[in-house]
Amino acid sequence: SDSYSLLILPGDGIGPEVMAEVRKIIDWFQSNRGMRFDVSEDLVGGAAYDVHGKPITDETMAKAQSVDAVLLGAVGGPAYDNLDFSVKPERALLRLRKEMDLFANLRPAQCFDALADFSSLKREVVSGLDILIVRELTSGVYFGEPRGIHSDGNNPENEGGRVGINTQRYTSGEIRRVARAAFELARKRKNRLCSMEKANVMESGVLWREEVQWVHDNEYPEVELTHMYADNGAMQLVRRPSQFDVIVTDNLFGDILSDAAAMLTGSLGMLPSASLGVPAANGRPKAMYEPVHGSAPDIAGQGKANPIACILSFAMALRYSYNEGAAADELEAAVERVLAQGARTADLMGPEGGTPIGTAEMGDRIVAAL
Amino acid sequence: SDSYSLLILPGDGIGPEVMAEVRKIIDWFQSNRGMRFDVSEDLVGGAAYDVHGKPITDETMAKAQSVDAVLLGAVGGPAYDNLDFSVKPERALLRLRKEMDLFANLRPAQCFDALADFSSLKREVVSGLDILIVRELTSGVYFGEPRGIHSDGNNPENEGGRVGINTQRYTSGEIRRVARAAFELARKRKNRLCSMEKANVMESGVLWREEVQWVHDNEYPEVELTHMYADNGAMQLVRRPSQFDVIVTDNLFGDILSDAAAMLTGSLGMLPSASLGVPAANGRPKAMYEPVHGSAPDIAGQGKANPIACILSFAMALRYSYNEGAAADELEAAVERVLAQGARTADLMGPEGGTPIGTAEMGDRIVAAL
Ligand SMILES: CC(C)[C@H](C(=O)O)[C@@H](O)C(=O)O
Ligand SMILES: CC(C)[C@H](C(=O)O)[C@@H](O)C(=O)O
Repeated sequence: SDSYSLLILPGDGIGPEVMAEVRKIIDWFQSNRGMRFDVSEDLVGGAAYDVHGKPITDETMAKAQSVDAVLLGAVGGPAYDNLDFSVKPERALLRLRKEMDLFANLRPAQCFDALADFSSLKREVVSGLDILIVRELTSGVYFGEPRGIHSDGNNPENEGGRVGINTQRYTSGEIRRVARAAFELARKRKNRLCSMEKANVMESGVLWREEVQWVHDNEYPEVELTHMYADNGAMQLVRRPSQFDVIVTDNLFGDILSDAAAMLTGSLGMLPSASLGVPAANGRPKAMYEPVHGSAPDIAGQGKANPIACILSFAMALRYSYNEGAAADELEAAVERVLAQGARTADLMGPEGGTPIGTAEMGDRIVAAL
Repeated sequence: SDSYSLLILPGDGIGPEVMAEVRKIIDWFQSNRGMRFDVSEDLVGGAAYDVHGKPITDETMAKAQSVDAVLLGAVGGPAYDNLDFSVKPERALLRLRKEMDLFANLRPAQCFDALADFSSLKREVVSGLDILIVRELTSGVYFGEPRGIHSDGNNPENEGGRVGINTQRYTSGEIRRVARAAFELARKRKNRLCSMEKANVMESGVLWREEVQWVHDNEYPEVELTHMYADNGAMQLVRRPSQFDVIVTDNLFGDILSDAAAMLTGSLGMLPSASLGVPAANGRPKAMYEPVHGSAPDIAGQGKANPIACILSFAMALRYSYNEGAAADELEAAVERVLAQGARTADLMGPEGGTPIGTAEMGDRIVAAL
């Protein structure tokens, strides 16, 4: 078989530590499953800023564009908090998403049974929870023009004299393509899709609702589609999250709702994500994978971060970029087995205590369970 | 003393039923506390649309502008779901907010101990919870121009050929005034304010953060101010809501975060809100009060709705519009007493069962407890 290209961007904070464990997993699949990976690595975020004065270079961007998949650790940290908007570590993420046209961000919110008690929600509310949020990732208010802060002249009504503007802009085509991605995923799951917007207040939300409905009626009539206002969506996620299967929503609502959903599960340190674009000539979509958690500067460099979210992100890469669904299942099962055996990094220790294992040992145990 | 003017807008669904109970409370305060209320009543929402073809008339608007306080029940219902955007019941709310310039929406998220088990969150996470969200209500993406849906010409890249646009726009002056309202409230509470935006992605969020900080540094240096990205805010509200005292945020984030916060408490049917504007010549701010819950069409007309959220909204009117803080305390204490005695409307019945009381009886009990 030809080789699978992968660009690793460890980034900041705990990024490099958790990525080292993914390397072990890659080695295992190379040795034991006859896969060949062509792995390269580069700087991103604050780590890139420190060397190049910008959070991602054109060379790294070109590399990201040319590989089958990018795996990113995390970006940001207190050292970079006061940087200018245009060179903040986060800009690297936004540039990767936009230039690679990664329009469909898949955010599974899954409750691992061994961790259900970590949720602030009652066990019976979150146990078995398995939602997939599909967030539009390349448009909306994140990228719309005009944008910026400007002077309001001498407007006497405006104390402070400034105006800040962003534009929420969606085309029907942008909505349809992410809706299709969500319908396809729903079809492979429980066949239910809930679309969220604020069509009662925003015209861009009216367009969103109409276009999602159009895709349903014309292409996926057999998938059960519902619409919900995003504020009610936030309420319902808290009240009874198990009512949802797949949720599709825009960039900004998706940012907030998927973070809330991730926290509901109690499994934040465990959750992966995939950002997918248009399939290339070889049939593989442009793709970037990253853990939902951040760079966790408070524990960086101590060898105690949980590598599971990053490892499960690699499992998503196996599934969506390399078409190795069986290998992805195998890796996910190994993670569940290790958890069931009681292996816990420090973030997974309950009040009953116990002895946590470190980042490297968790990686080793997962390899051993494969 | 001169009389207190009040415009009652019962609206749709359970609105008229819960409002009838507020009338009893008003009567009690007139008979027993020497207050004089000048009460008028009018149609709003679907009820106004049915009669006038629009969700609020100019006459009702003029009346709302002239009174000390407006008390609104709820608007909307399935009969109006397919109305055009411009005449939907919700437009009445938006028009009242905008034309009365009600820029500060106060949304207490409080957990009533008797109801803590209704929360999907663990009792220990929500018990005693008492947050106040201050949401900007007259600007941002709700009102920014340009807005609308238009044709994208024959752009071959845009399947469907349409574009939907909304504009998030904030002036420094708009941010400062709602920040001041929030700092004032924080000062009367635990002296802590958390401001939420997406300054890592949106320039309007950068302006928000800078202006809130400016008001802090120049006018309220003694209040503890923190800033949080709104997605992290959503996470933290789920994880450990008790970390917050007062939260200030923009119109759209406030819509979503305050609904999530309300649901956390388990007390949704109990939560009031106040929307305050600029003080008039008599020192009283323009003001509208409404329960957080909606029109609940499924139980409308059955006499079983919970009137407490609307009664507590009237308590907020006593406090903020009529400067009758002691009376507000008295009314709130009566509600707590009735709950402690075990009185429950149907929405407050736990799995252990019991016999629910109706809307009217709950109103009577609260009057009796005064
Ligand atoms: C870091 C930030 C720019 C980013 C976003 O807002 O999209 C993050 O919150 C995310 O969800 O990936
Ligand atoms: C009904 C709707 C227009 C309104 C809003 O979005 O502001 C509601 O959700 C609210 O929070 O009062």
